[in-house]
Amino acid sequence: VAGHGRRYVAVVGPGEASEAECAMAAEVGRLLAERGAVLVTGGLGGTMAAAAQGCSDAGGTAVALLPGSERADANPYSSIVLPTGLGELRNGLIVRAADAVIAIGGSWGTLSEIALARRTAVPVICLGAWSVTSPSGTDLALLVAGSPAEAVDFALTTSGS
Amino acid sequence: VAGHGRRYVAVVGPGEASEAECAMAAEVGRLLAERGAVLVTGGLGGTMAAAAQGCSDAGGTAVALLPGSERADANPYSSIVLPTGLGELRNGLIVRAADAVIAIGGSWGTLSEIALARRTAVPVICLGAWSVTSPSGTDLALLVAGSPAEAVDFALTTSGS
Amino acid sequence: VAGHGRRYVAVVGPGEASEAECAMAAEVGRLLAERGAVLVTGGLGGTMAAAAQGCSDAGGTAVALLPGSERADANPYSSIVLPTGLGELRNGLIVRAADAVIAIGGSWGTLSEIALARRTAVPVICLGAWSVTSPSGTDLALLVAGSPAEAVDFALTTSGS
Amino acid sequence: VAGHGRRYVAVVGPGEASEAECAMAAEVGRLLAERGAVLVTGGLGGTMAAAAQGCSDAGGTAVALLPGSERADANPYSSIVLPTGLGELRNGLIVRAADAVIAIGGSWGTLSEIALARRTAVPVICLGAWSVTSPSGTDLALLVAGSPAEAVDFALTTSGS
Repeated sequence: VAGHGRRYVAVVGPGEASEAECAMAAEVGRLLAERGAVLVTGGLGGTMAAAAQGCSDAGGTAVALLPGSERADANPYSSIVLPTGLGELRNGLIVRAADAVIAIGGSWGTLSEIALARRTAVPVICLGAWSVTSPSGTDLALLVAGSPAEAVDFALTTSGS
Repeated sequence: VAGHGRRYVAVVGPGEASEAECAMAAEVGRLLAERGAVLVTGGLGGTMAAAAQGCSDAGGTAVALLPGSERADANPYSSIVLPTGLGELRNGLIVRAADAVIAIGGSWGTLSEIALARRTAVPVICLGAWSVTSPSGTDLALLVAGSPAEAVDFALTTSGS
Repeated sequence: VAGHGRRYVAVVGPGEASEAECAMAAEVGRLLAERGAVLVTGGLGGTMAAAAQGCSDAGGTAVALLPGSERADANPYSSIVLPTGLGELRNGLIVRAADAVIAIGGSWGTLSEIALARRTAVPVICLGAWSVTSPSGTDLALLVAGSPAEAVDFALTTSGS
Repeated sequence: VAGHGRRYVAVVGPGEASEAECAMAAEVGRLLAERGAVLVTGGLGGTMAAAAQGCSDAGGTAVALLPGSERADANPYSSIVLPTGLGELRNGLIVRAADAVIAIGGSWGTLSEIALARRTAVPVICLGAWSVTSPSGTDLALLVAGSPAEAVDFALTTSGS
């Protein structure tokens, strides 16, 4: 399949993550590979490395969009490594490159990607439940998946939000 | 004062905002002008326009960083209008240009700027209380100001977070 | 005049420049200020500092778009200093923010801005004649001004290229 | 080989190109594939499509960094297609992602990429001779390859400029 006809799914999550989070990320990476989707991550450690490893081990394609300018900063599991030199602005590029976003775990960086995706109508599904209430008392609702398989199903089948 | 010696404060908030939110934004803009700070906004309507108007009316400098490529899209209250053509990625530029961020009201776009600022160690103060709990149950705490004056005080005096 | 109704002119040129080049840049900055235009530069030394100084000394507005993340890296003559953290990609932002570009002197960085401006239909005028011939033998023509005054006239009156 | 250990070579050139230029681009793409390098292009037509087709037909990996936000705008020969939404600023991303740049044919867009690469010390080799003289009379020298094979040899073996 040509690159423009494939499905691209970003996995976003912290660079320092728990074992449970990394296990979920690896499972998501593996499932994306098995179903022919391209994984996009920020290319560093924690959930990013785990997702890339799960994807690569299953023969899939894992794209890394690095914040810095040095390709060597990437984890060793990504198939395609692109330094952007944009710093944290590369979070926005990850969201733009994705047809859907799977968010694992929680940190300000992860939340910036979730929020930007929601702002730009890229579908987001979370492994683990966020609770976000705005100053006006509005609950900013996020979809929650019960398992990596459910998250991947959603990411591969949703037609937008 | 030369431009590199001034204090730059971003006001982030939704383009469609309530009267109360716009009144707070205008007050923040006015106070920033009176205290010699440079206001940075996204240059569109709602809280952005209100902050710029408050700032300009008090003789201050309001910089607009537009998402699109057309200068004419800016609100008419900004002193300096810079089209970036970056789309929502310009949110990251606003945060980078700021020494501190004052967030008013709530939306995904606003939250993306808050989160990016926290991720990159730019101090943030909110007018109105967010509640953000991550999947691990951690409360992602945000400072809350009781008034525009308190928000401006914080933004002009904090030395980082 | 509100910021969206003003004319924005970028002065692009090397950070290490000859006295003659800096004198031209300072004159361009002064003339832009006198005619009410906003100067946009890359915020560093050489022609950028000279143009900003000429502009500021004449009471004008000089905007600096820095490549790095530190406001303190700017020359002391800019009225508004915005760190972008984009590295050399900020050259593209300068071009986007400008209604016209005046190029002084020559370097690869300057040529990248000239070429990007021509590619995106932003009018360019050069103080000093480039000669650029493509592999197919085509002369990539650039307008040349005979003096800073002529360059500023062009930049303030051209309606596009 | 993991993605961070591969060699990334950008092929830059016009979207509307002659048959001879496209034939050279296709040959470069093929040779890069055969030697295990990753091709990076702007993802549109002309030389970009030809290089991607040559690469893909030989079993290689062709990455497309699109200026717009729509993946469907890519040529059908790229293996990985990433919309950036940065407009012409994506030219800078292409240069950042590359260990070396091969330039084919001539246009302002191509020259912007050549100049930016030279500015940021990414090695450039041209198929076809440019002549660039700056206002000070300095010849801005560019390496010229006599054939696609020579260009690829250089791009895969140079250690910087």
